[in-house]
Amino acid sequence: MRTIHLIGIGAGDPEHITVQAVNRLNEVDVFFLLDKGDAKKDLVDARLAILERYVAQPRYRVVRAVDADRDRTPANYRETVAEWHGRRADLYEGLFRDELRDGQVGAVLCWGDPTLYDNTIAVIEDVRRRGHVEFDYTVVPGVSSVSALVAAHRISLNQIGAPVLVTTGRRLAADGFPDDVDDVVVMLDAHCAFTGLDDPDLDLYWGAYLGTPDELIAAGPLTEVAKTIPPLREQARERKGWIMDTYLLRRRKR
Amino acid sequence: MRTIHLIGIGAGDPEHITVQAVNRLNEVDVFFLLDKGDAKKDLVDARLAILERYVAQPRYRVVRAVDADRDRTPANYRETVAEWHGRRADLYEGLFRDELRDGQVGAVLCWGDPTLYDNTIAVIEDVRRRGHVEFDYTVVPGVSSVSALVAAHRISLNQIGAPVLVTTGRRLAADGFPDDVDDVVVMLDAHCAFTGLDDPDLDLYWGAYLGTPDELIAAGPLTEVAKTIPPLREQARERKGWIMDTYLLRRRKR
Ligand SMILES: C[S@@+](CC[C@H](N)C(=O)[O-])C[C@H]1O[C@@H](n2cnc3c(N)ncnc32)[C@H](O)[C@@H]1O
Ligand SMILES: C[S@@+](CC[C@H](N)C(=O)[O-])C[C@H]1O[C@@H](n2cnc3c(N)ncnc32)[C@H](O)[C@@H]1O
Repeated sequence: MRTIHLIGIGAGDPEHITVQAVNRLNEVDVFFLLDKGDAKKDLVDARLAILERYVAQPRYRVVRAVDADRDRTPANYRETVAEWHGRRADLYEGLFRDELRDGQVGAVLCWGDPTLYDNTIAVIEDVRRRGHVEFDYTVVPGVSSVSALVAAHRISLNQIGAPVLVTTGRRLAADGFPDDVDDVVVMLDAHCAFTGLDDPDLDLYWGAYLGTPDELIAAGPLTEVAKTIPPLREQARERKGWIMDTYLLRRRKR
Repeated sequence: MRTIHLIGIGAGDPEHITVQAVNRLNEVDVFFLLDKGDAKKDLVDARLAILERYVAQPRYRVVRAVDADRDRTPANYRETVAEWHGRRADLYEGLFRDELRDGQVGAVLCWGDPTLYDNTIAVIEDVRRRGHVEFDYTVVPGVSSVSALVAAHRISLNQIGAPVLVTTGRRLAADGFPDDVDDVVVMLDAHCAFTGLDDPDLDLYWGAYLGTPDELIAAGPLTEVAKTIPPLREQARERKGWIMDTYLLRRRKR
């Protein structure tokens, strides 16, 4: 039997890794690292730095592979994602079969918390169900970029006893700000969907490259920061070649 | 100047603590620990065990105080909570003033992630704004019980590209299951609000005492587990004298 650990490593700050994650890292024979092209090179380097820093045992190998590519502006989002998902499953299946012997332990390092907007769990579960390679797996939770965002702003995710919606830029753009929820976290937003809202009762708490030396945060009434954040974001994106940002929209109590 | 760290310690598993949290613990002169009566004694003990395990420096003191009491079944929820909030602020203000010298570092250990259904950040921010005791503070994010729940079930919090609502038992009971969101996480539910839903398209993923040796998890179609979980929960609660549980309701794709 092989074992695979899906290990949350935090979303930028190497010290956001948990003791459990560090312990698991030290049981691993093979780390599977998917390269996603130049723009994401920094994210691969961050993973290598984590191994460098936290793995004390010298036995491990790193197996790198080129990640399945994916259409970023698909006509049919769900279908394109499902197809990409299938190709990732093929990739991991091959890697587990070819690179991991019976009794060995493999791992995938997941950005932030593996359970949040990351398809690795679902892909690995598919590979297991197919049954061509026998293995068991565990999921090691991590600090998400959502927690890092609100901690950096020193605010709570929720208002007292109130609900919070976590959603994507795509969905915010399509659905608008909900009527029945006052706090909305937005992830995976390449287009500053908040600029499409025009609500004087909203505050915005924004963060990019959270937990890293490049961390940027900004907050204020939406009507004001909707003008200042997009140029700031664009400059940062050009300078680094990529950006990861997330934000909380909070409706002030009426 | 005094410094206060609000440190997320994970929601049950002492190994869910982050390296950042461990580093902060080791800078602390005074830990403020609020006792909440017998039922919560285990939660205080869990905090003491974390200090025992992770604090290497011998300089620290633990200052314990009795937490502000609070009506658990108030007529006006928001008002009662606000009043409780004020009394907690008085308590922390007195503790910081009397127990921490200028230049010293204090800390409050927050269960799970300090930013999720925990009023400590808001209370401390109030104390700072009052300006009677000068201090600065930081928030150290942690692994929440939500992440621990879905990791234990080895599922994602969200479905592909879809939003997730995080809410309370009280709000689920009042508002019902939303029409426009397929995934709802419920916290702070003392009354199994899921038993009030009757939707054959919902699956439920439940967990109690997550991350602890008493961890219980159960999952299945809501219509089935809505019968089995309440008695299981009640037995566990009687045996231990308290329970903390949370769950994800997921609408199956139609
Ligand atoms: C594919 S999702 C993965 C999220 C990850 N599993 C987590 O727990 O944060 C990537 C999105 O997470 C957010 N994100 C991740 N890391 C971030 C960081 N360091 N700063 C700001 N946003 C981040 C961004 O919204 C980004 O588009
Ligand atoms: C006051 S809130 C604090 C939440 C905490 N800040 C977190 O990040 O998990 C307490 C609620 O969190 C959930 N919870 C906390 N720890 C838990 C555990 N170990 N197992 C199950 N649920 C837990 C329960 O829903 C409980 O009612």
